[in-house]
Amino acid sequence: MGEFELIRRYFFPLADAGRHPDIVLGPGDDCAVQRLREGVDLVFSVDTLVEGVHFPQHYAPEKLAWRGLAVAASDLAAMGADPVCFTLAITLPEASPVWLQDFSTGLAAASRQFGLSLAGGDTTRGPLTLTLQVHGTVPRGGEIRRSGAKPGDLICVSGTLGNAGAALEFLDEGSPTPAQAELLSHYHAPQPGIALGQALRGSASAAVDISDGLAADLGHLLEESGVGGTINVDCLPISDTLIALRPDAIDLALYAGDDYQLCVTLPESSYEKLEGTVRDQLTAIGRITAGSGLSVEGAGQPGSERRRQGYDHFGSQ
Amino acid sequence: MGEFELIRRYFFPLADAGRHPDIVLGPGDDCAVQRLREGVDLVFSVDTLVEGVHFPQHYAPEKLAWRGLAVAASDLAAMGADPVCFTLAITLPEASPVWLQDFSTGLAAASRQFGLSLAGGDTTRGPLTLTLQVHGTVPRGGEIRRSGAKPGDLICVSGTLGNAGAALEFLDEGSPTPAQAELLSHYHAPQPGIALGQALRGSASAAVDISDGLAADLGHLLEESGVGGTINVDCLPISDTLIALRPDAIDLALYAGDDYQLCVTLPESSYEKLEGTVRDQLTAIGRITAGSGLSVEGAGQPGSERRRQGYDHFGSQ
Repeated sequence: MGEFELIRRYFFPLADAGRHPDIVLGPGDDCAVQRLREGVDLVFSVDTLVEGVHFPQHYAPEKLAWRGLAVAASDLAAMGADPVCFTLAITLPEASPVWLQDFSTGLAAASRQFGLSLAGGDTTRGPLTLTLQVHGTVPRGGEIRRSGAKPGDLICVSGTLGNAGAALEFLDEGSPTPAQAELLSHYHAPQPGIALGQALRGSASAAVDISDGLAADLGHLLEESGVGGTINVDCLPISDTLIALRPDAIDLALYAGDDYQLCVTLPESSYEKLEGTVRDQLTAIGRITAGSGLSVEGAGQPGSERRRQGYDHFGSQ
Repeated sequence: MGEFELIRRYFFPLADAGRHPDIVLGPGDDCAVQRLREGVDLVFSVDTLVEGVHFPQHYAPEKLAWRGLAVAASDLAAMGADPVCFTLAITLPEASPVWLQDFSTGLAAASRQFGLSLAGGDTTRGPLTLTLQVHGTVPRGGEIRRSGAKPGDLICVSGTLGNAGAALEFLDEGSPTPAQAELLSHYHAPQPGIALGQALRGSASAAVDISDGLAADLGHLLEESGVGGTINVDCLPISDTLIALRPDAIDLALYAGDDYQLCVTLPESSYEKLEGTVRDQLTAIGRITAGSGLSVEGAGQPGSERRRQGYDHFGSQ
């Protein structure tokens, strides 16, 4: 099957099915065309996933498609953007109809879930690699950058951390236990915080998505903001499953990537104004300080401080 | 060197140096931000180049960078777009400072030449692969699509064809002859017709860039427009160098890719109104017809008809 026929059969239907109204011209021409509504800015990010590096060899194509789009969409979430569309550059060693059909099914599901319609792409032969670029919009100047954190701001994270990192150990497990299966779902089907990012627009002073681990990504945020930060490991949101399974759950929550949760900073007054469902998704784990670098405090009792005190532990300084 | 340090050292300076005024936020955050002027649409395209497939192994990094951005920019040219920015997703087997420095130098030169500033990207480890996405703008609704060709329109191509295709044979030649060197320059440093595409906005009824060969790409244009076309091979613009070097010059001009010239259609009345420099870049090679498919006529004397008659050969039907 030629490149053109392959694209037409497996990817064009996807573009037609869920076309975002902003996409004036989808795949099939030299370029795609996107019309932005008045008063918005275009927000975009590109991510590459290489077989054997970012996902295991012989990884299920349906999961790969979801994971690929989720990883990219997570960057839109971190900016607080409204999702619009994506392009897919896919490099394939061969054109297997079964593989492509499964990939296309996974991509369609993720596309619908994240509100991102396929706008264009490129299909090439070579080692299996995906490059996805996602487009979103924000009200002009309304994007949440990494650079806006101020001393005194609370540091919060969404969801629970460390699950996907723990799952790396048994990715190839044929018959996972229920606990393993729960952690695996975090690796296979990350849920980018798109709605959360949108809800935090105007409240959050800074945000980053956690792809390389909390310590690393929060570190980038601190550096870009020119501030320091202190977090208490006892406040880290860690699932009961992970706590039960791994004595080093805190290390995983701090240093493992692949969860694609959000790390955001916001003034305490903004935090207190957050509505129920948004606030429920966030756990306060520390505070921005003057200075630089990340300080880590706590006794290493996962979840204990969080359950007892929540963000009050970081009472005004 | 870590990914972050690598990006910072070799790619950030590029983004700072030639930042397009529409780029509100460049590399270094979760996303880049582009602000579109009022009344324009965003036009974008993505292209992947895989080592050993789209360029030779151990290809000079400076040339690779130019070629990569040129290939992508050529799609903007085909839409008649004003260039704005690009993202670079690069997968590298290793982080060689010499390679990266040369690549960065080539990319900076192409970036300046094409008016495309680096807005973001991703750097990953794996088999050498480049994916470039280019962004441009057109006045709202003003893009030149593949689908607008009408029976009676002239079919024109820019520049000369077949040079890059012929060069494939001696890409590895250590001491090319002057004739070989001339053809090689078409392969190594294609010049996307950005200014030509811009000038044809409002005149051309359809356009496509020639990446896979004239016959194939014009074929796509005909199919998308729902029309047929007839071209005369004796009118094909072929360089004297190629004619001297290759008895099958016409086949190369028809079927070889890699030249990144434009193939455009336009009504005869529009063609006659084109100004000197724009018209000089175009050669009329045929005419759009009712029906479907591409018919090829001519005696196979490269350039003879073109020199004698130009587009009059395709006198009104």
